[in-house]
Amino acid sequence: MSKKVLVLPGDGIGPEIVEQAVRVLDAVNAKFNLDIEHESALVGGSAYDETGSPLPEVTLDKAKAADAILLGAVGGPKWDGLDMSVRPEKGLLGLRSNLELFANLRPAILYPQLADASSLKPEIVAGLDILIVRELTGGIYFGQPRGIRTLENGEREGFNTYVYSESEIRRIARSAFEAARQRGKRVCSIDKSNVLEVTVLWKEVMEEVAKEYPDVELSHMLVDNAAMQLVRAPKQFDVMVTGNMFGDILSDAAAMLTGSIGMLPSASLNAEGRGMYEPCHGSAPDIAGKGIANPLATILSVAMMLRYSLDAKDAADTIEAAVSTVLDQGLRTADIASQGSETVSTSQMGDAVLAAL
Amino acid sequence: MSKKVLVLPGDGIGPEIVEQAVRVLDAVNAKFNLDIEHESALVGGSAYDETGSPLPEVTLDKAKAADAILLGAVGGPKWDGLDMSVRPEKGLLGLRSNLELFANLRPAILYPQLADASSLKPEIVAGLDILIVRELTGGIYFGQPRGIRTLENGEREGFNTYVYSESEIRRIARSAFEAARQRGKRVCSIDKSNVLEVTVLWKEVMEEVAKEYPDVELSHMLVDNAAMQLVRAPKQFDVMVTGNMFGDILSDAAAMLTGSIGMLPSASLNAEGRGMYEPCHGSAPDIAGKGIANPLATILSVAMMLRYSLDAKDAADTIEAAVSTVLDQGLRTADIASQGSETVSTSQMGDAVLAAL
Ligand SMILES: CC(C)[C@H](C(=O)O)[C@@H](O)C(=O)O
Ligand SMILES: CC(C)[C@H](C(=O)O)[C@@H](O)C(=O)O
Repeated sequence: MSKKVLVLPGDGIGPEIVEQAVRVLDAVNAKFNLDIEHESALVGGSAYDETGSPLPEVTLDKAKAADAILLGAVGGPKWDGLDMSVRPEKGLLGLRSNLELFANLRPAILYPQLADASSLKPEIVAGLDILIVRELTGGIYFGQPRGIRTLENGEREGFNTYVYSESEIRRIARSAFEAARQRGKRVCSIDKSNVLEVTVLWKEVMEEVAKEYPDVELSHMLVDNAAMQLVRAPKQFDVMVTGNMFGDILSDAAAMLTGSIGMLPSASLNAEGRGMYEPCHGSAPDIAGKGIANPLATILSVAMMLRYSLDAKDAADTIEAAVSTVLDQGLRTADIASQGSETVSTSQMGDAVLAAL
Repeated sequence: MSKKVLVLPGDGIGPEIVEQAVRVLDAVNAKFNLDIEHESALVGGSAYDETGSPLPEVTLDKAKAADAILLGAVGGPKWDGLDMSVRPEKGLLGLRSNLELFANLRPAILYPQLADASSLKPEIVAGLDILIVRELTGGIYFGQPRGIRTLENGEREGFNTYVYSESEIRRIARSAFEAARQRGKRVCSIDKSNVLEVTVLWKEVMEEVAKEYPDVELSHMLVDNAAMQLVRAPKQFDVMVTGNMFGDILSDAAAMLTGSIGMLPSASLNAEGRGMYEPCHGSAPDIAGKGIANPLATILSVAMMLRYSLDAKDAADTIEAAVSTVLDQGLRTADIASQGSETVSTSQMGDAVLAAL
């Protein structure tokens, strides 16, 4: 039976980079006889412009029916004035929560060919390979109650709720321990248990789940210290696991350590391993439409998708090897350009990966 | 009339570093005829051990009566098992909230003499001078309701509340704009307004207050992007203003950019400018009692105290110049040691600063 991929180009540079990624998907589909079908749908600001909703019913239905989703990026200043309920980001958050994509895997890997791009000293980041496992469907992103209310004294007050249940923590803990088993066998759980009760429970449940994984070592770190340690000595980490909000912050910091966030894919998985795949970077509205965006994070997201959701490890390996080849050839989009490299456009980068497949 | 300083050594390396800072305070007190009196009290884990409370009544009373407070650091693994309500950190949080020390000023400055210590490339951090203004008595640190409860299905759930009222936001906004006026005249407010309603209100009030400061430029940045930008290009910032939790994370990341968090002081001020002064670093229990901790952040906290709360700018300048002199002399505690420098103990560093005064 054929596998169904839903392609959601989204906003900003989304359509340009997804276009190249789909070319790569088509190529490995043919080469490896994967029997993958794909179709596209609207999400984010572009969906709002067409339909009045950042996550139209039809998109959600197609997403539910798909074996995997490839997303570009959503958002942009054009929609900044909109009410929170219809902002582009709600499209993304709606997909995550409706599909229960609770496990967000964000690798921060330094490609040896791009070592120069980092703002950190080479010895601090050479060989960097961290995996951040971020809880994606709970925490303060989705906690109730939330809103802005008027107090008795007439002033307004904004409020959100940071909440996790034991079962929510348990399942993301398992995702982290399982991932660590395939890697360095170390999990560092990030909390703020000296201040926040919700993370006291988080830490407790992590300890509990750790007992099921005696071959994996669990440690704990406070979130402020984790932010420092990522800057000071990021290679101390193997897998970091944390909640939605801390994960948002730390995974972006970790990605930026590599200096080449344009290279980093991510996966958001549900309990059955179905998932949504997207680059770690955003919609970069400032360079949208110019044909200069880096498509490699999206192309590598296709590789992750093949590996995790479509049972096509060989095709994934082939794509990753092709990306490595084009980097070896000295081809760079503007974001990762350096002295001596050849700066290419989005589509030229796509061409080069296709040629290297 | 004499000015009263309350000295709170706290836990871990706190007593050692505070001892050197008090020697420096005594020296400038004599030299400039400042008529400062000081006494000590217990806080944190050491207070808990003696009295069963991390913030004994007598300490709080003395704190309320003081013109300024000098704090070492609190906390350590020894007290990790305690109930949240009596943990050392509650002593610190209790002081902040009881004294309404809502404005936390955390400079991240790279001392030219210590440029090597940074894990970032020299061109990225040379000349770094950011001020983070963190709201310190509100937000999720103090929000109600909070706790761990048992749900109907028998599982537990942890929850905290992230809440800010307009007046809380307004006063920290003013602190940030006032500080920016004395510096580069740029404020960047950090929020997560694409997801959290409480920070939608935050952003709105920042815009409102900005109108009172037409000479200061206000910009906004999402917290995940701010974490990235601190790593990528920290010199783009002048003053960053944010809430309690984001400020905790970002100020530690910013401090670590310098590679010498052992050098960074902080001030926590109330509406009248009275304040608590402490190093940005923690209680470092692993090196406590060894006499190797860096006292300079605490000594520089004394300088901040003299400048902001004790109206003794000349004395503050003198201390800062003395610290610069000892760095020029090549003296370094272990945390900032580098090739060619002379590694000294905590008390030797104190001696050197005294000699340079
Ligand atoms: C766009 C935004 C809602 C989203 C998030 O905060 O989760 C993004 O920053 C991310 O990390 O995927
Ligand atoms: C000790 C802890 C409660 C405290 C905080 O989180 O505010 C510390 O990390 C700080 O930044 O001063």
